[in-house]
Amino acid sequence: MTASPSQASGTGSRAVPSTAETAAAIRAGDRRALARAITMIESTRPDHRAWAEDLMAELLPHTGKSVRIGISGVPGVGKSTFIETFGLHVIGQGHRIAVLAVDPSSQRTGGSILGDKTRMEELTRNHSAFIRPSPSGGTLGGVARRTREAMLACEAAGYDVVVVETVGVGQSETAVSDMVDLFMLLLLPGGGDELQGIKKGIVELADLIVVNKADGALVDAARHAVAEYRHALALLRQPSKDWKVPVLTCSAATGVGVPEVWETVGRYRATLAASGALDARRVEQARAWMWSEIAETLTDAFRRHPAVRADLPGAERAVTRGDATPTAAARGLLEKFLGNRTDG
Amino acid sequence: MTASPSQASGTGSRAVPSTAETAAAIRAGDRRALARAITMIESTRPDHRAWAEDLMAELLPHTGKSVRIGISGVPGVGKSTFIETFGLHVIGQGHRIAVLAVDPSSQRTGGSILGDKTRMEELTRNHSAFIRPSPSGGTLGGVARRTREAMLACEAAGYDVVVVETVGVGQSETAVSDMVDLFMLLLLPGGGDELQGIKKGIVELADLIVVNKADGALVDAARHAVAEYRHALALLRQPSKDWKVPVLTCSAATGVGVPEVWETVGRYRATLAASGALDARRVEQARAWMWSEIAETLTDAFRRHPAVRADLPGAERAVTRGDATPTAAARGLLEKFLGNRTDG
Repeated sequence: MTASPSQASGTGSRAVPSTAETAAAIRAGDRRALARAITMIESTRPDHRAWAEDLMAELLPHTGKSVRIGISGVPGVGKSTFIETFGLHVIGQGHRIAVLAVDPSSQRTGGSILGDKTRMEELTRNHSAFIRPSPSGGTLGGVARRTREAMLACEAAGYDVVVVETVGVGQSETAVSDMVDLFMLLLLPGGGDELQGIKKGIVELADLIVVNKADGALVDAARHAVAEYRHALALLRQPSKDWKVPVLTCSAATGVGVPEVWETVGRYRATLAASGALDARRVEQARAWMWSEIAETLTDAFRRHPAVRADLPGAERAVTRGDATPTAAARGLLEKFLGNRTDG
Repeated sequence: MTASPSQASGTGSRAVPSTAETAAAIRAGDRRALARAITMIESTRPDHRAWAEDLMAELLPHTGKSVRIGISGVPGVGKSTFIETFGLHVIGQGHRIAVLAVDPSSQRTGGSILGDKTRMEELTRNHSAFIRPSPSGGTLGGVARRTREAMLACEAAGYDVVVVETVGVGQSETAVSDMVDLFMLLLLPGGGDELQGIKKGIVELADLIVVNKADGALVDAARHAVAEYRHALALLRQPSKDWKVPVLTCSAATGVGVPEVWETVGRYRATLAASGALDARRVEQARAWMWSEIAETLTDAFRRHPAVRADLPGAERAVTRGDATPTAAARGLLEKFLGNRTDG
């Protein structure tokens, strides 16, 4: 099924091509078609959403063949420089790389993510790279869904390495680790202090830790930081039978250590593919994604229901003041929304 | 409002007293009334649920005055012995203690939680202690809700210390940390190896870590473990401005170190109360509890909807096989459930 919103309702002055045409163009490597498709994926307009959904159905058989890598790290860790150096190395190995961003809070955090494209100047110009800045605004769930679909579109376009970037300070890291094969955390050679900006629990999400800026005067500090992180991880993390989280050093500025990061990504993929853990992770991610979309849509519909909307502020106030149990407050609201279905 | 299900529908042969009578009896310290009320709280029968909800409304003004402590640790760490020694010490300080358990998977894990009451023989017999085994079966959400309400009932009964116990290997630790003021993790003096049974992320939930069995030949090992955990925590955890997670040792068998654990709990409470963080945590917990009940009920109603029920297996199969995007599959199911409301 192909949908084609009318010219008048399209994005800008161009006519929106059919999803079949777009899918064919994307698969043929047309970067503009890919960029336009992602714009439609990011749109919240119902006709755009329907178009994007049809497009995804067309692309889906051609997805799944990339290495999906999440990269997180606080501002200042040199994430953009790392992605530039890493991306150029990966391209040098014969791959094509797409870089996406998840950052629903970019306004608040200063929008450092991919906003400053000049930091990835060379990668941006490279024909084997596709760089897409963060969709602005929206809930984390919405942004995460759009990023997931953009990732699939990039796979259909033949990018066999997809990097999803986050700033490492918010909620989005869990969302990203739920959509990638490998979640990489970039750290500075500063020991524990530099983790202050990182949200609790994020270190535990990492499949690979890379201490960046291991150059010049910081080489020793980086080596020390690696030893400390290795020790702490061994102590605090449940060892997986498939994978022991490596802690590497690199210098995105000089390129030293970056090939080893890419080799480790390959080793990770091979290890998890051999044990079946990679497929299992992706299947579980797809299932979880479906359920999180269901839960989010149900909660949205609930919040928009007129009677719920009217009663919700009072109910929340009663609960937070201790005038009503959460159970009683929830049930009162749910009866408005579900009617007879509550006991069904 | 008071409800009183008829004698025929009561739990067993006794008539179910009114919620007003039960609330008065609970507040007067009638342990049987408390135990019966918790049985009603744990029931899934709609008339029992309604009765329990009315009871909670009556008790709510008299809740909130206890120290709520979550205690987690793998089987073998000496949890029951610790709770017995800790409980008797706390009672010796003039308090009354209630011990509840969250363990939806108790059948699978061998039911060690509170099943072996002989391990808490002295505490069980003490009139200042109230010990309630885990409600068996049910979803984690259901068990967590029931445990939360049982906790409130114990508070209304005048227990000013409530311990909620979990086995430390499943999902329930997050649920418990979401209902208590302080989450305590018990560890063995074995270093990192003994964390193998502990689920990823649980160490990061802990507000207090206690290395148990620091006695006899293990004193040195325990001291070494404490130093290692302290170091690892400092490195991997984001320091809170209110509280740096202490790592203590104790021997539940000899009692050495147990008073210090209780003192630390008190210091934690005082610190967080002074900064306002304690109230903020409880308010946020109540709000989150309401929303998790809403989400759970919505998802339940969704799953029970006849058309959803019919289509769900196919949709999940399509998603996990990669024949449909999670978004498309979710939307197909949601249209069955919400009808016109999807776009509303």
